[in-house]
Amino acid sequence: MSRFWSQRVHQLTPYVPGEQPKVDNLIKLNTNESPYPPSPKVLEAISAQVNDKLRLYPDPNSDALKQSLAHYYQLETNQVFVGNGSDEVLAHIFMGLLKQDKPILFPDITYSFYPVYCGLYDVEYQTVPLNEEFAIQPADYQIDNGGIIFPNPNAPTGRLLPLQAIEQILQGNPNSVVVVDEAYIDFGGESAAQLIHRYPNLLVVQTFSKSRALAGLRVGFALGHPDLIEALERVKNSFNSYPLDRLAVAGAVAAMEDESYFEASCDKIIATRNRLTEFLQQQGFQVIPSAANFVFASHPDKAAADIAQALRERAIIVRYFNKPRIDEYLRITIGTDAETDALCQALMEILA
Amino acid sequence: MSRFWSQRVHQLTPYVPGEQPKVDNLIKLNTNESPYPPSPKVLEAISAQVNDKLRLYPDPNSDALKQSLAHYYQLETNQVFVGNGSDEVLAHIFMGLLKQDKPILFPDITYSFYPVYCGLYDVEYQTVPLNEEFAIQPADYQIDNGGIIFPNPNAPTGRLLPLQAIEQILQGNPNSVVVVDEAYIDFGGESAAQLIHRYPNLLVVQTFSKSRALAGLRVGFALGHPDLIEALERVKNSFNSYPLDRLAVAGAVAAMEDESYFEASCDKIIATRNRLTEFLQQQGFQVIPSAANFVFASHPDKAAADIAQALRERAIIVRYFNKPRIDEYLRITIGTDAETDALCQALMEILA
Repeated sequence: MSRFWSQRVHQLTPYVPGEQPKVDNLIKLNTNESPYPPSPKVLEAISAQVNDKLRLYPDPNSDALKQSLAHYYQLETNQVFVGNGSDEVLAHIFMGLLKQDKPILFPDITYSFYPVYCGLYDVEYQTVPLNEEFAIQPADYQIDNGGIIFPNPNAPTGRLLPLQAIEQILQGNPNSVVVVDEAYIDFGGESAAQLIHRYPNLLVVQTFSKSRALAGLRVGFALGHPDLIEALERVKNSFNSYPLDRLAVAGAVAAMEDESYFEASCDKIIATRNRLTEFLQQQGFQVIPSAANFVFASHPDKAAADIAQALRERAIIVRYFNKPRIDEYLRITIGTDAETDALCQALMEILA
Repeated sequence: MSRFWSQRVHQLTPYVPGEQPKVDNLIKLNTNESPYPPSPKVLEAISAQVNDKLRLYPDPNSDALKQSLAHYYQLETNQVFVGNGSDEVLAHIFMGLLKQDKPILFPDITYSFYPVYCGLYDVEYQTVPLNEEFAIQPADYQIDNGGIIFPNPNAPTGRLLPLQAIEQILQGNPNSVVVVDEAYIDFGGESAAQLIHRYPNLLVVQTFSKSRALAGLRVGFALGHPDLIEALERVKNSFNSYPLDRLAVAGAVAAMEDESYFEASCDKIIATRNRLTEFLQQQGFQVIPSAANFVFASHPDKAAADIAQALRERAIIVRYFNKPRIDEYLRITIGTDAETDALCQALMEILA
């Protein structure tokens, strides 16, 4: 607290990211990173750019990456926005598109950065409760609003909303921007990107941090109508001309190009998720059906916080949210097969 | 223009960065990059991090880099803030410290991103004219204000304000944050960082893009009292948890460690600046005394815009600002010796 702070700073409640431990001997299942490394072609592409040209600014528009994404999603480059991780992209969305006279809507259980952005930019919001099964109900979003945002699959539940339900929300809100935050879409969902040509109010957000295994490189993007993208470009160009460095662009382009590696990684993660889900259910856990690279699970006999603590004592870290409605759940990132075996073994001991 | 934009987006006038041409055969003297590559140790340190760990998030606090900077400037780590280029750091400063009830002050001729940040965050400002020699007059900053910011050396003039004058501004404004933007300080100035322990209202901003030859990596930082740094951390943690990627941190740490390479590069640039200044004066240019890696020069007989165009026809690009008071000046980045020779040759032809 300081007399030099602007008024807004006093009011902020910053986001708290999952722990990033500085020791190596942990099984880290707490921040939904990929258990598999980035494609070797990504590492090659980055290495090729570690050269004297780092003295020069990058392309302020990251055109190479926009072209790669536009090609992949069959869009034009003016339908693509890129940023320094999808968190930066989301921040610009809150300032440029979701700051309106009416409150915006998002689920009561969702990515906990959304209310933080609202605090940063003074955006009014109203939360919409998920139903008893933690599902988004499209009909609940038929109320007056200044915009709508939700992850699909939702976080931290992993539950997927089918495209048909997203269309229902889009059609019911033609005067609102509807942001579908698809950080986890590649693990079993269908991207709403294919709806962009039909809905000028749809903005899709994705990240390279999960399915592309590049959390350490910081690249995210948004796809939508050129008018929505232009709003984000205007904010970005009033904030930081060069958000993506030369190495990040090179790595992200290579990641988009190596489709077979990407698909193989996603398939392995999905297979492990199915195996883990089955195991957890056998152990008595209630597991929310997940289309993400994590599962959200609760045990009727043992408190989630206690299980998390017991796992930590065995050098396994998972994420626990001490929040209403979800304080009996653990969010467990899908690890490698060996990590999953160790997790299952530890859980059997803890529940025994 | 779109009905989906927030009100603020309609009002923005985004910053226009200097051209980043996509062809290689140009002598690029327009965006104040270093003509010399980063230290070989920087490239080694980055290369060592191009590995499977890119799947993991970076340290959200970039502690390794904060420690390196704190050590270099003899500060504590809670006196150091880091960001994705100094432009991002400046953006957070405008939101977190310079958005006050009273207008902030900055020179009429200065870094043209400052009024853009004011537009983004609705910060009121008042410009203070430089004197006839383009110098900041500390006495002019003795008026009621919500904060003060200026580059030292100033941009695009290159003119240095001595530390004594900065202290005069600090002492005259104990209730205002005074931000000294030292992007070019290593080319002949003395950093105000040494004043931090005496002035709780002083914030110093620097970048790795100029003297550290890492414009392509995007790293900047701020130094100041822990209370000022905390304001920036609160904004950062409400915006993007992980602004610096793994490779940027590794490269920046290595750059701080290789002091002899850094000093040798700065010395070469200063020597070339002195030689170019002498040449320009011989050709009749008026050259503002520069403590930066560029010179700001005007010719009495030939319009600056015409010279810039004639240079471009010879594959040399410099920066021309079509703005009041400076529309007869060119800002010329200091290049290598060979680039400077080519520039001098071209100017002789153009002026002949």
